[in-house]
Amino acid sequence: MIDITAMIKQIGQQAKQAARELAWASGDKKNRALILMAQSLRDQAGILIAANQLDLIRAEQQNLTPAMLDRLRLTEAHIEGMAEGLSQIAQLPDPVGAIDHMRRMVNQMQVGQMRVPLGVIGIIYESRPNVTADAAGLCLKSGNAVILRGGSEAIHSNRAITTCLIQALVETGLPKHAIQFIDTIDRNAVGLLLKTPQYIDVIIPRGGKELIQRIMAESHIPVIKHLDGNCHTYVDSHADLEQAFALTLNGKMQRTGVCNATETLLVHADIAKKFLPKMAKLLHEAGCELRVCELSRKLIGKTIPVQTATAEDWDCEYLGPILAIRVVESIQAALDHIEAHSSRHTEVIVTQDHQRAMRFLRQVDSAAVLVNASSRLNDGFQFGLGAEIGISTDKLHVRGPVGLEGLTCQKYVVFGDGQIRS
Amino acid sequence: MIDITAMIKQIGQQAKQAARELAWASGDKKNRALILMAQSLRDQAGILIAANQLDLIRAEQQNLTPAMLDRLRLTEAHIEGMAEGLSQIAQLPDPVGAIDHMRRMVNQMQVGQMRVPLGVIGIIYESRPNVTADAAGLCLKSGNAVILRGGSEAIHSNRAITTCLIQALVETGLPKHAIQFIDTIDRNAVGLLLKTPQYIDVIIPRGGKELIQRIMAESHIPVIKHLDGNCHTYVDSHADLEQAFALTLNGKMQRTGVCNATETLLVHADIAKKFLPKMAKLLHEAGCELRVCELSRKLIGKTIPVQTATAEDWDCEYLGPILAIRVVESIQAALDHIEAHSSRHTEVIVTQDHQRAMRFLRQVDSAAVLVNASSRLNDGFQFGLGAEIGISTDKLHVRGPVGLEGLTCQKYVVFGDGQIRS
Repeated sequence: MIDITAMIKQIGQQAKQAARELAWASGDKKNRALILMAQSLRDQAGILIAANQLDLIRAEQQNLTPAMLDRLRLTEAHIEGMAEGLSQIAQLPDPVGAIDHMRRMVNQMQVGQMRVPLGVIGIIYESRPNVTADAAGLCLKSGNAVILRGGSEAIHSNRAITTCLIQALVETGLPKHAIQFIDTIDRNAVGLLLKTPQYIDVIIPRGGKELIQRIMAESHIPVIKHLDGNCHTYVDSHADLEQAFALTLNGKMQRTGVCNATETLLVHADIAKKFLPKMAKLLHEAGCELRVCELSRKLIGKTIPVQTATAEDWDCEYLGPILAIRVVESIQAALDHIEAHSSRHTEVIVTQDHQRAMRFLRQVDSAAVLVNASSRLNDGFQFGLGAEIGISTDKLHVRGPVGLEGLTCQKYVVFGDGQIRS
Repeated sequence: MIDITAMIKQIGQQAKQAARELAWASGDKKNRALILMAQSLRDQAGILIAANQLDLIRAEQQNLTPAMLDRLRLTEAHIEGMAEGLSQIAQLPDPVGAIDHMRRMVNQMQVGQMRVPLGVIGIIYESRPNVTADAAGLCLKSGNAVILRGGSEAIHSNRAITTCLIQALVETGLPKHAIQFIDTIDRNAVGLLLKTPQYIDVIIPRGGKELIQRIMAESHIPVIKHLDGNCHTYVDSHADLEQAFALTLNGKMQRTGVCNATETLLVHADIAKKFLPKMAKLLHEAGCELRVCELSRKLIGKTIPVQTATAEDWDCEYLGPILAIRVVESIQAALDHIEAHSSRHTEVIVTQDHQRAMRFLRQVDSAAVLVNASSRLNDGFQFGLGAEIGISTDKLHVRGPVGLEGLTCQKYVVFGDGQIRS
């Protein structure tokens, strides 16, 4: 039997040592490793698929749902996707070492802030084996050592992927412990990991709300997290109607199982009569179930089937083709509704009125606030970060899409020539 | 008897509401409030000193140490210092509302990051009543509501100061609950406060290591903290000797009870013979006790009294006129010693060699790394932040001196004209 406590300790110490070396590895070397990692995944696609088969067979025996099996499955296309992702990360600029805000003080010393890795990052995730390669690639590029803890249902797949990645590290001459995988299905491993702030600088969970809540409750290490996405689109009285139709439909239906999908539509009373009947029709035709307030129901009429919204609907992240709809008397009422119910992920205003747009931008306290753009655009790629490890709903450290910069911090650096304090 | 749970809940809800209003208060209004706050403290100096007398009498009865009584005492000069501090905060630029990194994406939407307050900040502090005014001023300027919890020994002083501050808020027309004071000596209040992430966005403790460790262990809310300052000055073989004498003496002795004082001096073996005897003499004459490695002892000779350092000395934050000294064989050995023993607060290299300076800057993982400048210069005022609420030894969110920007975060803002995701 494995001694899990000793195992976690060893992995932690190795990660810490690797992080120290990795922090000043050249961008060039990290890029070579990323390209080799991509190549290694492509070369060993057959092995990866065979390892994935072991997980799938076990999952079927354990009666996992078709959705879970689907998330677990690794195809040639997935492998190519992982490899392509790693190659793209290699193309991004190296965030490490840049010195910002350099300034000369009155005593002539120069003060700036140097961007440096966080150190050791623990990634705790479920199902999708591709997270293994994506997360490892982002951590490597940002100069961080990573400890990966995937779901037990994907252990064979994750082990095989990690083996490819580490092989590439070693070939490049980077420390092999820069990427480590917790190779046990023992559920105590996570709890132990969360209690090692001496080794791990930050935990990033990727998975459902339950996993994240468990981690928040247990962790002695700071967590960068995306909790949930109850996102709002507010159609103002001064909205362009065609834009409002398109943005609502895209925000809700372009993809429904994701955190930046619109879950509640708020409509200003002055435009509701013109807007809602056609909007309801478009949504219904797209296959969306509607849960609406009393006034909305009256305005939509009887030709489109709707449910009456209950208090719970305003707080619900459906993650599916369902939309809550509420008519509000004013922009203030929209702001109040959002303040009370939003999970502070993504909020949209549709308006042609400049003052209202600026007021909404300023007053809505969410990770991303968009004027006349779909909620689905709150995303690291869409925002030009090049890659993302998730979307943070925290306020501290990093808020919104987390790219390479979110995996770094800034330390102060001073160039003096003998300055003392008097 | 007061129901503490209900009290904390009420304070939390009031703070949340005030934070929402304060987040978009104009810089002008906040500045007017700060100036009125300063005036109010000056006008009511007599009342503040009388309130402080109540605390001092009680403290004497409870046999507090002279050092503690000294920290607790509020003089005319302290009151003028608080007022002057608030006036200075009024002069600083308003960090809130600035949009950085604005860029146009290929789909023509513009993406930027708007600086916004964190929301509600809880400050938990000991002794010094001036923290009340300093912290409240910084939180107000950065648009955050603040909940203040001072030490029970200073409750009369803190209550009187807070009363002045709130009066100024109300006169300015800002929400009075933007500054709240937990007016009870019940020790359970802190524990309850730390369990209200629904109301408080961040906790900032100010005090000794024990207080901070208790808060870290109990808090369900993210903490921005300064834990301890075991700071190193490394005198390289390529150091300018005169600089090395001055920087070491200043780093250690300019003020000894502070977090950025040098606690360990590392000396490269090649320069130790020329450097150490005179350095030891200078330190000894300044009243500094020396705890040294075997080689240092030999080089210093018998004319200067020294203690032999034990393993504990390398990890000790003396906060007094004591310095640990160790001779190291190489810059690598210095880096290794720092990696093993530093609390990652402030580290200094003294060298004229460019490559070594840059290597030290890059490889030392501390909040501030200085080349040829005293460790005492790691400070918000010295770094040009205008004011500071402490020096963070965390890596996430803010590292080093925490000024107004450290009390804010950035949310993504998007200006579109109908962009959808395809």
